[in-house]
Amino acid sequence: MSDAETTLPKQRLLTESARIFGEKGFAGASVREICRAAETSSNMIHHYFGSKQGLYDAVLAKFSEQVFEVPMRMLQHVPDTSAAYAARLEIFFQESLVALISNRHIYEMVHRERLVVSSFISYNQAFIAFLQAGKEKGLIRENLDAEMLTGLFLDRLGAQIYYANPIRELSGGDILTDPVYQNRWIAANLDLFLNGAFER
Amino acid sequence: MSDAETTLPKQRLLTESARIFGEKGFAGASVREICRAAETSSNMIHHYFGSKQGLYDAVLAKFSEQVFEVPMRMLQHVPDTSAAYAARLEIFFQESLVALISNRHIYEMVHRERLVVSSFISYNQAFIAFLQAGKEKGLIRENLDAEMLTGLFLDRLGAQIYYANPIRELSGGDILTDPVYQNRWIAANLDLFLNGAFER
Repeated sequence: MSDAETTLPKQRLLTESARIFGEKGFAGASVREICRAAETSSNMIHHYFGSKQGLYDAVLAKFSEQVFEVPMRMLQHVPDTSAAYAARLEIFFQESLVALISNRHIYEMVHRERLVVSSFISYNQAFIAFLQAGKEKGLIRENLDAEMLTGLFLDRLGAQIYYANPIRELSGGDILTDPVYQNRWIAANLDLFLNGAFER
Repeated sequence: MSDAETTLPKQRLLTESARIFGEKGFAGASVREICRAAETSSNMIHHYFGSKQGLYDAVLAKFSEQVFEVPMRMLQHVPDTSAAYAARLEIFFQESLVALISNRHIYEMVHRERLVVSSFISYNQAFIAFLQAGKEKGLIRENLDAEMLTGLFLDRLGAQIYYANPIRELSGGDILTDPVYQNRWIAANLDLFLNGAFER
């Protein structure tokens, strides 16, 4: 059996259209191409989603609900020691990278078209709360302006994903598939975030 | 006299088409609209640039040559003290923001379409060199992985500019026009860059 036979048409439509919308945007993606990739008919789009617009909205809603589910869970507990706090931030950062890579095509479209999805906002809020809790426990500096720093990981990760191909061509580093490069990049950025550039 | 009468048609074509290409992309910008905005005729495009493509190439070349001219100059001298090093980085950061705001429309197009312009590369190289020199003078930590950190300011600034409108709608902060917000944002990010989040 092919993959198409083992999954439901609704699921296949969500998966394949996410890829095609991501690559071509809403206007550039044709119903015909989506149906061919999902091995189903436009009747199924009508049945499950009402229209191409309904399918697109469903893809974005699913992206927004799921993309940061795992990394945000990493911030629910705030450890009591610096070492544990740093370890948790590292996992948060790693899982955020995994989340964007797994949803790469749809993320690229969201970024290109500047769609503000609710998960970006809750992600930032969860990160602010983690920093505030770290302050209360005396782990990070009281005078950090957390609200001004929230976008840091998301901007950095987002730009790495958005520019993954040019970066690979220029530097040889492949953030999408090379675990050595991924770990080096995450370690360097986390180190700067926690310890700063200045000599102590 | 109107502005159009005091500048040359060639200059007006560069200025107006930069704005229109920036907003609509190459395909979306019409020669007719560009000529109307520049108060000139398509003969002048043909005369100075050969074609719409030639005009577009000239706009991108000008952007690439000029956009980071001032901020990069700030990194040519490497001070001997931490305070002076931090002050210079702050000016570099401020001037980078000014550069992107001044070239906002064309930057947004470059970002959206993932064009790799040579000034982004030289900007990163100049920043790496400044960090390396800071290490040699014992001002910043020897074990910073400078190559992995180069994109930091550019990613942060670029995302602030690219998402300026949604950020303003969500938070009220206007990175494009509000000097209080600009200064708070730059100070917070520079502080994190230099001092890190951890308590010292």
